[in-house]
Amino acid sequence: MGAPMPELRIVLVEPKIEGNIGAVARAMRNFDVTDLVLVRPCTVGEEARRRAMHGASLLAAARTVAELKAAITDADLVVGTSGVETESEKKFARIAISPRELAARVSSLDGTVALLFGREDFGLLDDELRICDLLVTVPAARDYPILNLSHAATIVLYEMFTSRSRRNRPREASGLEKEKLHEAFDALLDATTYPAHNRVRTKIMFRRLVGRAVPSKWEFHALMGVLQRATKRVRRLEEKRE
Amino acid sequence: MGAPMPELRIVLVEPKIEGNIGAVARAMRNFDVTDLVLVRPCTVGEEARRRAMHGASLLAAARTVAELKAAITDADLVVGTSGVETESEKKFARIAISPRELAARVSSLDGTVALLFGREDFGLLDDELRICDLLVTVPAARDYPILNLSHAATIVLYEMFTSRSRRNRPREASGLEKEKLHEAFDALLDATTYPAHNRVRTKIMFRRLVGRAVPSKWEFHALMGVLQRATKRVRRLEEKRE
Repeated sequence: MGAPMPELRIVLVEPKIEGNIGAVARAMRNFDVTDLVLVRPCTVGEEARRRAMHGASLLAAARTVAELKAAITDADLVVGTSGVETESEKKFARIAISPRELAARVSSLDGTVALLFGREDFGLLDDELRICDLLVTVPAARDYPILNLSHAATIVLYEMFTSRSRRNRPREASGLEKEKLHEAFDALLDATTYPAHNRVRTKIMFRRLVGRAVPSKWEFHALMGVLQRATKRVRRLEEKRE
Repeated sequence: MGAPMPELRIVLVEPKIEGNIGAVARAMRNFDVTDLVLVRPCTVGEEARRRAMHGASLLAAARTVAELKAAITDADLVVGTSGVETESEKKFARIAISPRELAARVSSLDGTVALLFGREDFGLLDDELRICDLLVTVPAARDYPILNLSHAATIVLYEMFTSRSRRNRPREASGLEKEKLHEAFDALLDATTYPAHNRVRTKIMFRRLVGRAVPSKWEFHALMGVLQRATKRVRRLEEKRE
């Protein structure tokens, strides 16, 4: 009691079947989550309300937005769900953790965690996955790993709910702090004239790494210090050459 | 490998909404379970097949029986699912374990485990619960613990699946590689004349961060590249000054 606990937000990106939206609302109510945001959804009508059952009130209170950004700007951690986990290291951007690992890592995070679920057919697009701090995949059968949208949401919500037996962890870095960290990393790449063709994936690598590690505020400051110091050192030495 | 593993059977008792039957079939396919028995179900038609997606074949192969007994006589363990867990010792018949406890207990059982799910509205009746060897309840919100039928089945199937499958993850960086990463981090601290009194804890911070993030081999190489590049850049600029 009193320990920090994340505020969970479910973000459905372009859901196409209103019954699924209703079913997700019901699952949210089952697992004590109320904040639902819909990005360019299909029409939400009678079928959605029917499937929502006691989740109808949170369905009615759901925000609808035109852009994904509007759903996540104030979130401290953005988690994408991906139906297929790749085993190829080249597709590094899709390397994911399990819902259980997610729950263990963020259960004591003091902030807003946005859980993104994509379209029923195409999931989240590459552009959408890129802005996620980390990715989650539900482990499933190799030959048919694609879960129904509300089933996937139910499992993630269930894992978050059951992980309430929490350890006390230090306060975690906020979303804003993490963005500063990524800017500092970027500045170091600049200072060291890091090759442009590798830069995008190296930045994503760092984002995933930080996302999985869930740094504390103290770790954030220490890591910022190291990165900024290295960048400054290079810049100062360059100035002296001129 | 080769260890005993239970054969799972899903038994739906008097399901009333065919969409739920289809959704259960899909979840079964997602979690590698194929044996479905329906006890006095509603009509299974187009909507059920649509919702089953790739589970349509196991839906078509489902047995339909008139009595629950026919669905479980050959089962080695009969597990009932109950939407509400009672805390009253008087209602001892309804004392239940969690899906995770169930998975841990039966994961190496060599035989058939029948998982019973009741009606959408009334669940399993007392008579049906009495013949179960054990009961399972999905932990959920106190004020609305009743899950959709296919959601409840999905969570139980998911727990059974994850308890017997080892996830395929990208190859992790070895201990030796991680030590090289720490040496590279150390070298960067040296190059940037990082204050000695903070160095020990900054190194520990980095070690913990990497430890929690569990980098893949690819991520290890990418991060090594960034650190070494920064160190080299500083060293080279210094040489030119001299």
